[in-house]
Amino acid sequence: MNVPKGFRFAAAAASFKKPGKLDLGAIVSDAPAVAAGVFTTNKFKAAPVLQCREMLAEGRRMSGFLANSGQANACTGETGRANCRAALELAGKALGVPAEGLLPASTGVIGAQFDMSKWEAAMPALAESLKTGAPEDFARAIMTTDTVHKIAEASFELGGGEVRVLGMCKGAGMISPKMATMLSFVICDADISAEAWRTMLADCVNLSINRVTVDGDMSTNDCVLALANGASGVAIESEDDYVLLRKHLLAVLEDLAYKIVMDAEGGTKVAFIEVSGAKDDADAEKVARAVGNSPLVKTALFGSDPNWGRIVCAAGYSGADFKADDLVLKIGGVLVFRNGTPEPGDMDDLLGPIMKERDIVIHIAVGDGPGSSLLLASDLTREYVSINADYRS
Amino acid sequence: MNVPKGFRFAAAAASFKKPGKLDLGAIVSDAPAVAAGVFTTNKFKAAPVLQCREMLAEGRRMSGFLANSGQANACTGETGRANCRAALELAGKALGVPAEGLLPASTGVIGAQFDMSKWEAAMPALAESLKTGAPEDFARAIMTTDTVHKIAEASFELGGGEVRVLGMCKGAGMISPKMATMLSFVICDADISAEAWRTMLADCVNLSINRVTVDGDMSTNDCVLALANGASGVAIESEDDYVLLRKHLLAVLEDLAYKIVMDAEGGTKVAFIEVSGAKDDADAEKVARAVGNSPLVKTALFGSDPNWGRIVCAAGYSGADFKADDLVLKIGGVLVFRNGTPEPGDMDDLLGPIMKERDIVIHIAVGDGPGSSLLLASDLTREYVSINADYRS
Repeated sequence: MNVPKGFRFAAAAASFKKPGKLDLGAIVSDAPAVAAGVFTTNKFKAAPVLQCREMLAEGRRMSGFLANSGQANACTGETGRANCRAALELAGKALGVPAEGLLPASTGVIGAQFDMSKWEAAMPALAESLKTGAPEDFARAIMTTDTVHKIAEASFELGGGEVRVLGMCKGAGMISPKMATMLSFVICDADISAEAWRTMLADCVNLSINRVTVDGDMSTNDCVLALANGASGVAIESEDDYVLLRKHLLAVLEDLAYKIVMDAEGGTKVAFIEVSGAKDDADAEKVARAVGNSPLVKTALFGSDPNWGRIVCAAGYSGADFKADDLVLKIGGVLVFRNGTPEPGDMDDLLGPIMKERDIVIHIAVGDGPGSSLLLASDLTREYVSINADYRS
Repeated sequence: MNVPKGFRFAAAAASFKKPGKLDLGAIVSDAPAVAAGVFTTNKFKAAPVLQCREMLAEGRRMSGFLANSGQANACTGETGRANCRAALELAGKALGVPAEGLLPASTGVIGAQFDMSKWEAAMPALAESLKTGAPEDFARAIMTTDTVHKIAEASFELGGGEVRVLGMCKGAGMISPKMATMLSFVICDADISAEAWRTMLADCVNLSINRVTVDGDMSTNDCVLALANGASGVAIESEDDYVLLRKHLLAVLEDLAYKIVMDAEGGTKVAFIEVSGAKDDADAEKVARAVGNSPLVKTALFGSDPNWGRIVCAAGYSGADFKADDLVLKIGGVLVFRNGTPEPGDMDDLLGPIMKERDIVIHIAVGDGPGSSLLLASDLTREYVSINADYRS
C-alpha cells in the first residue's frame, strides 16, 4: 500500500462493540492539514456530525480523525454533544494533538449515550497503537456489519514528486440517497489550498459516494472527511494539477463506493443502474433511485430472476417526467423492452446468464433529453433481513 | 355473509397460475349497475386498467367484473390491449352479458402475453360456476401470493329496507404509495346516482386503501372497482343517506386495507404509523411513508426490536418540513424521544412487550401544525425476500 506521507494510524478496543473487538480508531497528521467534509442531510444529525460542521466552519487546519463504531451518538441531545467533546479531549491528550484539531465520527446504534469510562479506559491502548498502527487497523475499527474492511488508494507523479491518496470507509447498512450513508475518511499528502480541497471533495463525492444505495435509508451519521497535509512536498497549483489530483481522488471514492455496495448487508449483487435521455439529471436520478430502491427489483436481483417488468414498473412510479412509450430497457446489453412492448425472443434464456453475474448493468433510456444518472444498488436478501432484525441482539 | 342482492359469482381454473388453481373470476349483476373505479398512477398502466378507464369514461352502467390472476397483462403493448378486449368478448358470451359491460382486471407477472386458448378453454367452467358460485370463489380466484382470501362486509337499515356492501381484494406484494397496490372489488345493492357513487368511492379509497404500504412498490395494475345495482330497492337520496352509506363503504375498505397489510408477503406485523402536528397533511404523509417504507424500521418490527432510533432517523430524511427538536415519538403509548433526547428509563424493558404484539402503534408528533396522516405498514421478513426472489420459479 502506498500510504500518504506524514500520517499515523491507531486502533483500540473500547467495548462499544463486543469486548475485544476493535471499535475505536484515529488518524493523526504530523503537520496540520487542510480539511474538508461532506455530511448527511438528515434532520437528525449525530453529535459528531454537528461537531465536525462547527469545526470545519472555522476554516482551520486539522490534525486528524477520531472515529468509533458500535454507538452512533445520534439522537442523544446535549449530553451527546458534551460526550463528543469530552472524547475529543481525552483522545487529544492521549495522542498528543490539540482536541480542537481532531474531527470526530461515530457509527452504530442510535440513541444510546456513551459510557465515558470506556473512552478513558481505551486511551492508553489507542496511544500505544499510534506508534505502529497501519491504515488497515483504522479501517477495521470503523466496521459495523461490514464483512471486510474497505480501503482504496491512488497515486501519481507530479513535478518530480509523488502524491498519494488513501481512502477508508465503512458501509453495509443504512446506505442511501443524497449522501451515501457511511463514514468515509480520505487522506492525501498533496499541498493544496483549503478552498480547492473542499470544492474537489464535494464535487467528487457527488459523483461517487452519493451514487450508491443499499436500503434507501439515509443515516444520521453520514460523513466523508478529508485531510491533505502537504507532506509529499508536491504543490497543486495549476488547473492541470487540480484536474490530475481530482481524477485520483475520484478514483479512490468510486472504488470505496463500489466496495460499499459490494459489501452491502447480506448483498450478493451490484446493479449498475444507468439512466439516460431524461429531461434533466434530477429526473434521471428519480428513475435510477426508484429502480435501485425497489424491494421487488432487489429481490429479483437476489434470485437472479430476469423479472424485468419490475424495473419498468419502478420507472413508471418514479415520478420522473417521460412518456411511457419512450422507455427502452436493456439488461447486460440485451434489448428487453421498447415502445411499450417486450422484445420478441425468450428473455429467460437471453437474460438468465446475465442475471447470474455479480455485476449487472441495467440501462434505462427514457427519451432523447440530456439528463443522465448512474446509481450502484445492492440486492435485497434474507441475510439483510436477518442482520437487521437481530442487529442489537 | 350478507351478500348484496342481485349479484352472481363465478370462478374457474384457466392455468394462468399452476394448472387446477382458481385464477379466473367474474361477478355479474342481474341489472346494470352504476360503476366507479380508482386506478394506479403508475406511468405503465396495464391493459385492463387502460380498458377500464376508457369504459368508465363513457359513464355507462356496467354489468360486472372479469378478473384473472397469474398474469398482469402489463407492459404488453397493443397485443395486450387486443387480448384484453378478446377476453371480454369470450367472457361476455359465456356469461350472457354484453362484453362492453364487463370491467376487466388482471394481476400477476408483468410483461408476458396471454395464451388466448387458455381463456377459451376456461369459459364453459366459468359459465357453469356462475350458477352456484359464492363471493369466496371469486376472492380465491384473484389471489397471487396472498395466503388467505380477503372479504369485508357491512350492511345497514334504511327506510325499511337493508343495504349491503361487500368488498373483495387481493394484496400481498407490490403494495404501496398513492394508490395501494392490489385489485379490489366492491359491490353494493343500494340505488345511488353514478356521480355520488364515484365521489364516495374516490373519497373512501383515499382514507383506506391509499393508506397502506407493504414494500413501497406501486404496481401497474392497481385498481378499485365498485358497482351499485340498486337491487335492495333502497335509494340513497338525502345527505344523511349518503353519509350513512359512505360510513359503511369506508368500513369495508378499511377492513380490506388492514387485511392487505396483515397478509403482506411474509408479513408478521401491522404498524399503525400516526403522524400529527405537521405543517399540512402532505408533510405528515411524507413522514409516515418514510417510516413505513424504511427497510430498517421494517426489519426491526420483524425482529420485535425496540430500535426506535431508526424511526427518528427515517423521519429525519423524509423531506418533511419540521424542527428536529419538535419531534415527539411514542410507541404503544410509551414516550420514547423528545427535545432531541431519549426519555430516561430502560426502553428495551418498556417497549419489549409492545414490540412483540402483532399490531404496533407508532405515534410521531412533529410540531403543533394541523397536518396529520395514518399509514398501515407491514414488516420486512426473510419470507418476503424468499417469496419475491423466487416468485416466478
